[in-house]
Amino acid sequence: MRIYGEPVSRLIEELSRLPGIGGKSAQRLAFYIIHLPEERAESLAGAILSAKRNVKYCSVCCSLTDSDPCHICASGKRDGKVIMVVEDPRDMAAYERTGEFHGLYHVLHGAVSPMHGVGPNDLTIAALLKRLQDTPVEEVIIATNPNVEGEATALYIAKILKPTGIKVTRIAHGVPVGGDLEFVDEVTLSRALEGRREI
Amino acid sequence: MRIYGEPVSRLIEELSRLPGIGGKSAQRLAFYIIHLPEERAESLAGAILSAKRNVKYCSVCCSLTDSDPCHICASGKRDGKVIMVVEDPRDMAAYERTGEFHGLYHVLHGAVSPMHGVGPNDLTIAALLKRLQDTPVEEVIIATNPNVEGEATALYIAKILKPTGIKVTRIAHGVPVGGDLEFVDEVTLSRALEGRREI
Repeated sequence: MRIYGEPVSRLIEELSRLPGIGGKSAQRLAFYIIHLPEERAESLAGAILSAKRNVKYCSVCCSLTDSDPCHICASGKRDGKVIMVVEDPRDMAAYERTGEFHGLYHVLHGAVSPMHGVGPNDLTIAALLKRLQDTPVEEVIIATNPNVEGEATALYIAKILKPTGIKVTRIAHGVPVGGDLEFVDEVTLSRALEGRREI
Repeated sequence: MRIYGEPVSRLIEELSRLPGIGGKSAQRLAFYIIHLPEERAESLAGAILSAKRNVKYCSVCCSLTDSDPCHICASGKRDGKVIMVVEDPRDMAAYERTGEFHGLYHVLHGAVSPMHGVGPNDLTIAALLKRLQDTPVEEVIIATNPNVEGEATALYIAKILKPTGIKVTRIAHGVPVGGDLEFVDEVTLSRALEGRREI
């Protein structure tokens, strides 16, 4: 559309290709950007380029990082005998925010999903196996998402790790803290009952 | 947050400063951008800079443009005797998409809103008056938004233009086409009744 002129149309088009941003949002964002002070627009563009260029995968845990190994794998304060397997760096960030986990991570970058053509070889499972061979690990905690793909991935990894003799655990399913029981789905309620603990 | 390393954190922060993009969306967008091919990331950053640097205000209609006057004001095919006053370039784009308006536009860049500290002098009303003095105009159509600020702005402009003797009109209020009468608010229904026309 030639209404706004080429630079604006191009910006709107680029923005609307981002996930979750439709035509109207892209237009709103484009106008916002045009009205920004020049240094703010430069800072945004610079952040995009810098993140794209300077971010790589950690050679140990496969997470995204600007230094290799990442600061978690490089930290002397973490317990290298426990590895938590997550699907995504964001899941790792979520657990880091709890401050309750002091081991290391392994990022799969996805979950097994035949529907979407994602097989075990598309994940970093081989890197995990190699890692377990090279370093002494006592427990692998599987923290993939509590959905069909995540569960399948958890079972697959548990099966693969069986011969190594390493303890493999899965994070607990149950009712979310602060929730209202009446709004919790049946599967979660049964899982919570199944996983009940003495108090 | 140092979980992802500086370049990613910086990108998340920059993105979350955009309107309508919260922390979670910013994180999702940042990861999407990191996984883009380098040329796509460069193209996005380039579009931001180019739009910011090359877009200026049209000296005639005050819309955003990369050429001055903008292609609508410069077009020989438009009827310069009719000017439609809109709040925003997006409103202009909306009317352009109808293909039904063949006059020129005037973009106010906002509406009178004492609540938000926007007075008539913050809009391009002076430029509109000058324009009406310099060129022969027969009708000014006020197409500000149908809300309190838009109506106040319409009335203000109509009052200011009274002495010029130029015909000032307001776009019609009524029920939206394709809507369901039962879901239309009372004010719109009364306005639609008021503005009824013989068929």
